[in-house]
Amino acid sequence: MPRVSQDHLDARRRQILDGSRTCFARHGYEGATVRRLEDATGLSRGAIFHHFKDKESLFLALAEDDAERMADVVAEQGLVQVMRDLLAEPAGDSAHAPGADWLGTRLEVSRRLRTDRDFRERWAKRSEQLTAATRARLQWQRDSGNLRDDVDIDVLTAYLELVLEGLVSHLAMGLPADDLGAVLDVVEESVRRHRGR
Amino acid sequence: MPRVSQDHLDARRRQILDGSRTCFARHGYEGATVRRLEDATGLSRGAIFHHFKDKESLFLALAEDDAERMADVVAEQGLVQVMRDLLAEPAGDSAHAPGADWLGTRLEVSRRLRTDRDFRERWAKRSEQLTAATRARLQWQRDSGNLRDDVDIDVLTAYLELVLEGLVSHLAMGLPADDLGAVLDVVEESVRRHRGR
Repeated sequence: MPRVSQDHLDARRRQILDGSRTCFARHGYEGATVRRLEDATGLSRGAIFHHFKDKESLFLALAEDDAERMADVVAEQGLVQVMRDLLAEPAGDSAHAPGADWLGTRLEVSRRLRTDRDFRERWAKRSEQLTAATRARLQWQRDSGNLRDDVDIDVLTAYLELVLEGLVSHLAMGLPADDLGAVLDVVEESVRRHRGR
Repeated sequence: MPRVSQDHLDARRRQILDGSRTCFARHGYEGATVRRLEDATGLSRGAIFHHFKDKESLFLALAEDDAERMADVVAEQGLVQVMRDLLAEPAGDSAHAPGADWLGTRLEVSRRLRTDRDFRERWAKRSEQLTAATRARLQWQRDSGNLRDDVDIDVLTAYLELVLEGLVSHLAMGLPADDLGAVLDVVEESVRRHRGR
């Protein structure tokens, strides 16, 4: 396949992912009809489903894409920073803020994990990369002497992921977020090394 | 109204709440049909809706009843103990374990908060008692010198509630709970007073 064609395909695929991300975030999985996906991407259903087998495959590709971008931020700045981003840009505030995008997709993932056993199996291996990125970042912090060393890294990883899940759920329920910046300070501090510990 | 009659009414109300709790936990709000509620309580629909105006009122009474019992445990043992109870008895393990009951109802509350704006308003004032119990418990711990005193009690309350929400969501998604006991140790320790702090 000539190179220009591959570039074109990649760009088209990116266009579909970016457009449908907003659409899924706004309407949920069931509410993101093919008609709405056409409007959101500016492409026909024929073009969309030339690149993705069906809506399920499109959503999985999107969630995977988000998880990769999230893992990149985790690798650079840690999972607490991902949570601060979510807090800075809750869902619906802006179509272009990464926080808004991630929250929408992640909510939909959480909901489908609860209700759809097939989806749970397909998602399992994709969710591992965020865990792996979080663990690697914590290991790096420990090697740098910044992380507490009295608790296993797997436990600290599970701790941060649990707080993330709580944050996603909290924002999804539309509960007030005023105290949550200070809460994340507590979370961040509780994984760090302290004098006297 | 004679006393014996009020006792009878209270007992009947209790019978309906206990039976329907299991039913809502197992089938979700929509899945808990009137037929299933009859089976679960051993009472006719006439008897059930003599005590509760409709299914919505029954569910709200149930959620309120659970929140009161949860607030009692929080007052005695703290919110972390409530979380340990949830962990010890995840949903579906036993119809009689308090953890299983609470998780089922709380999940349904979380789901409806996300999807049902009317429910959100009706629930708001009922959810305050758990927050109030958590805050009172933390204040008592601070007065006893067991709580860290460098962070506002409202922030620590929000922190514990965020972790609870994450735990409910985690268990609802059927994710592995192996590390979570150790995670709750980290949570508990992070609100306590430490030497050197």
